[in-house]
Amino acid sequence: MAKAIYKKKIKPVILITNDDGVSAPGIKALVQAVKDLGKVVVVAPDKPQSGMGHAITIGHPLRLSSVEIFDEVEAYQCSGTPVDCVKLAVDKVLHRKPDICLSGINHGANHSINVIYSGTMSAALEASIESIPSIGFSLLDYSIEADMSGAAYYARLLVKQLLGKKINKHLCLNVNVPPAPKELLKGLKLCRQAYAKYEERFDERNDPHGKKYYWLTGEFQNFDKGKDTDVWALEHNFISVVPVQFDLTNYELKARLQKVITSKL
Amino acid sequence: MAKAIYKKKIKPVILITNDDGVSAPGIKALVQAVKDLGKVVVVAPDKPQSGMGHAITIGHPLRLSSVEIFDEVEAYQCSGTPVDCVKLAVDKVLHRKPDICLSGINHGANHSINVIYSGTMSAALEASIESIPSIGFSLLDYSIEADMSGAAYYARLLVKQLLGKKINKHLCLNVNVPPAPKELLKGLKLCRQAYAKYEERFDERNDPHGKKYYWLTGEFQNFDKGKDTDVWALEHNFISVVPVQFDLTNYELKARLQKVITSKL
Repeated sequence: MAKAIYKKKIKPVILITNDDGVSAPGIKALVQAVKDLGKVVVVAPDKPQSGMGHAITIGHPLRLSSVEIFDEVEAYQCSGTPVDCVKLAVDKVLHRKPDICLSGINHGANHSINVIYSGTMSAALEASIESIPSIGFSLLDYSIEADMSGAAYYARLLVKQLLGKKINKHLCLNVNVPPAPKELLKGLKLCRQAYAKYEERFDERNDPHGKKYYWLTGEFQNFDKGKDTDVWALEHNFISVVPVQFDLTNYELKARLQKVITSKL
Repeated sequence: MAKAIYKKKIKPVILITNDDGVSAPGIKALVQAVKDLGKVVVVAPDKPQSGMGHAITIGHPLRLSSVEIFDEVEAYQCSGTPVDCVKLAVDKVLHRKPDICLSGINHGANHSINVIYSGTMSAALEASIESIPSIGFSLLDYSIEADMSGAAYYARLLVKQLLGKKINKHLCLNVNVPPAPKELLKGLKLCRQAYAKYEERFDERNDPHGKKYYWLTGEFQNFDKGKDTDVWALEHNFISVVPVQFDLTNYELKARLQKVITSKL
């Protein structure tokens, strides 16, 4: 994998990954949108990895192979999760940290609680943990034929804007784009993650041998009426931008718990 | 799965899961420690699921079957991830939300950045998302023969203490226990998540057919010198207790980014 070592840094190195797999239209649209802004290298899963969250592969080894999918762009497919892709790209493909890591464009929403389950956003968060600024892009359209032009347009503008500035090394943005024509999009809106979740129920079926199995289904419910949330922004045709972090400490609860939990039981 | 419907709530319902699998010694120690504090029901993965993070199973269906592993305790194994176990337990086993969800006792550390990769903690966080107070327990000893007695003792004390109080429905505690004899443990200490991570490198090997494969390895590095962190507490033989949350919004960065990202590009 030595050919990806960049001894002279002329252009910023842009690592691109996703969770829909290296052959998904969304990653193609993202590569196309930013390929002239830097040296783009793709390391993405060799199969769909939606809902993989921050899973890593520890029980078995990973495979990595080059693929020719994108015009004039070095690309690899990896047998692991989106987070594995980021780790492997840094150690075995780039042999350095890229200047920025982009993930997506995801086919489907990653606003509100989805950020927790999303392979797309976990790849971006992994980059942020490794001190690589990152952005995850998602389009609120699950269709494989979704029109990516609006999302790609704003992805390019945002990346261009950020590359021109000194970026916080832990910057991680969760960008979601409404499923509307580009001309109807109202621009970027900084938001907080809405308190919204899925009310799950499992579809119970019997296999041909009479044994039960369960399909995860559920309905999205927004419990958050704030106008500063990603869900609100998306409902009003804004592109939501939520800065996310990997420190999960609940500082407010920590302060309150001092009274409840005695230091010595 | 109707036998687990509790029409009359006499004792609190305690859901127990883990990521090492239903047959791991850690979950047995946890069940044993708290089984007289309520009606315990176990729904845990049918195989090890370490490092699965917040992964959910969406591309294929799940299996669920009862197992007789624990004395006088209803238990099920599930073919999915730890997060799947929590979802399935609520919808198809308990048919209600349990009063508390416990996860563990994990064989290995889940302090600092481990919380992000951990199936144990993701199961607890999933419960918290579903408004079920939860605690994940981990022992800093990866061995299958690890001495769980100290961890089990403090798990029991903590659960007993919390069940006697009105608990915040989103309470989620990440509890890590040092690998020391019970008498050397200094008690519980409320902490924040340390900024510490793994410096990964992949071990590159060739298979018998000459094709490369990669094993994830890495060294733990603590970049955080604070004395209020979980890593500090564990190094000083305290049991670290970090309240964690599922709102990943980085509010500080959000405020700062208003100047950088224009609302309309």
